Amino acid sequence: MPHLDIRLPMRWSDTDGYGHVNNAAMLTLLEEARIRAFWGAPDEQVALGAEVLPSALPTFDGGSSVHTVVASHRVEYGRELPFRRDDVIVRLWLSRIGGASLTIDYLVLTGEDPDGAAPYATARTVIVLVDEATGRPTRIPAELRGSLARFTGEPLRFRD
Amino acid sequence: MPHLDIRLPMRWSDTDGYGHVNNAAMLTLLEEARIRAFWGAPDEQVALGAEVLPSALPTFDGGSSVHTVVASHRVEYGRELPFRRDDVIVRLWLSRIGGASLTIDYLVLTGEDPDGAAPYATARTVIVLVDEATGRPTRIPAELRGSLARFTGEPLRFRD
Amino acid sequence: MPHLDIRLPMRWSDTDGYGHVNNAAMLTLLEEARIRAFWGAPDEQVALGAEVLPSALPTFDGGSSVHTVVASHRVEYGRELPFRRDDVIVRLWLSRIGGASLTIDYLVLTGEDPDGAAPYATARTVIVLVDEATGRPTRIPAELRGSLARFTGEPLRFRD
Amino acid sequence: MPHLDIRLPMRWSDTDGYGHVNNAAMLTLLEEARIRAFWGAPDEQVALGAEVLPSALPTFDGGSSVHTVVASHRVEYGRELPFRRDDVIVRLWLSRIGGASLTIDYLVLTGEDPDGAAPYATARTVIVLVDEATGRPTRIPAELRGSLARFTGEPLRFRD
Repeated sequence: MPHLDIRLPMRWSDTDGYGHVNNAAMLTLLEEARIRAFWGAPDEQVALGAEVLPSALPTFDGGSSVHTVVASHRVEYGRELPFRRDDVIVRLWLSRIGGASLTIDYLVLTGEDPDGAAPYATARTVIVLVDEATGRPTRIPAELRGSLARFTGEPLRFRD
Repeated sequence: MPHLDIRLPMRWSDTDGYGHVNNAAMLTLLEEARIRAFWGAPDEQVALGAEVLPSALPTFDGGSSVHTVVASHRVEYGRELPFRRDDVIVRLWLSRIGGASLTIDYLVLTGEDPDGAAPYATARTVIVLVDEATGRPTRIPAELRGSLARFTGEPLRFRD
Repeated sequence: MPHLDIRLPMRWSDTDGYGHVNNAAMLTLLEEARIRAFWGAPDEQVALGAEVLPSALPTFDGGSSVHTVVASHRVEYGRELPFRRDDVIVRLWLSRIGGASLTIDYLVLTGEDPDGAAPYATARTVIVLVDEATGRPTRIPAELRGSLARFTGEPLRFRD
Repeated sequence: MPHLDIRLPMRWSDTDGYGHVNNAAMLTLLEEARIRAFWGAPDEQVALGAEVLPSALPTFDGGSSVHTVVASHRVEYGRELPFRRDDVIVRLWLSRIGGASLTIDYLVLTGEDPDGAAPYATARTVIVLVDEATGRPTRIPAELRGSLARFTGEPLRFRD
């Protein structure tokens, strides 16, 4: 199934007094994965993402009149994630391409379990493309829709 | 409908470069509301919570052999929440009391809109009570179950 | 000696895997104390601060053409600060009023040690008033200088 | 002058409503740089650090009976650091090796200014080695002292 694996360093301050990554800090890791997957970066190794998306999706650098807003999150915590010095792997794909929205599904993994049999967390974010001038949702152009199609995968199922 | 209104100061560092509370920081506000609602505090003004719960629910002080784990979150963002100097109000209630779990539903409000017609966020957290010795879910005792019943309210409906 | 005592709730996510408030999170507590001390708030109980300052010092609400920038911090950690459910007390005063800058000295305390014999941290921040239009430091007006004088106290001594 | 350049991704949530990295978040970046410099990591590219230190300095993995405590920080902010998608570079070296303490000096840079002529921040941290059993400072062994000597450089000068 198509997906991107985004590698991110955890931070010591992501842990809380229970000795593992705080539940809200996990959402910060997902945010960084989204940004790296869809906005690219100068020395980005996410080849597939870097090829298609930076020219199409809005960036933080401005120039674009479109920006993205987080509409919702779902997250289920599978296992405690203690501090580790190698990267967290956030595996993500698009589980739905809507009129003005994208649904991103994620698995939070590490190098010990790259197959994702027992993810630390499973999650989903819906982001909406918004026109900066009007503040209203704006339709995803046909061309971008086509490019995004190849990141599309099965939606996760959530327990709760 | 029964609920608790927990007042919490936002922090300047909860905002991000978009000028309003970051999506993950909103989860931190919910965490603080949960802690204040269910674990009480020395000078806590949450009378209803303080009366019933501290003696029944596990605390961070130890003494108890039970602790709680966040199993899942759902959150939908309704409006951008800019930095403000008066408190955020997190309104919460129990939408379900399971065998070993509690489902908490929330509205994030401010003093400008205390009726909650247009919440900044609506959210739900499932927490599980876990026995510290075995690491396994542990049944909510009948007596606690009875006390918690009067915090029970209608479940929110989620869009996504 | 004149000072303000600002009471702030700690957050569970301020702790890290060592089980006490993370060293950087301590700076966030100081930031919140500064904001509450010098910018006031609708239901602020910091009578002395609220009386003098909100009309004089820049606010986050705009309206003012002056804003403040953190120029530097010093902080020394005295004791580990575990999570606690009652407030942290940040005691602060001005140790120097410069041409365009204010030096704020702090002690981080709790209700168990209100006299401050063994603070969790001692710290100092220099903030500079900056004209928003030019981005340059701007002189503290004589009238404000007069008002601020009564918050002035002895500078702390730092070990390192 | 000997130094290590540690490359770290900034996070979007490091920015605050002013649109640049929050003053306390800068201390979190320094913390991550310290951890990567002195504790190594499985795929660490900091060759010099990785070669000497992991076997000598305490790790978060346990096994060691010594851990480190932050005694103090100084930080001066030179320029605003907006969100950027390429890494922050934290340049660091030891400006003093004490009996039981290490003083780390830092420059916060980016790839646009690798020479460090106009750092975003200059900073210093004193860490103390502590025996876990007694909680007391513990002397740096002669052998480690020798290894650390080659990371030693000139101390920064601080304005405030």
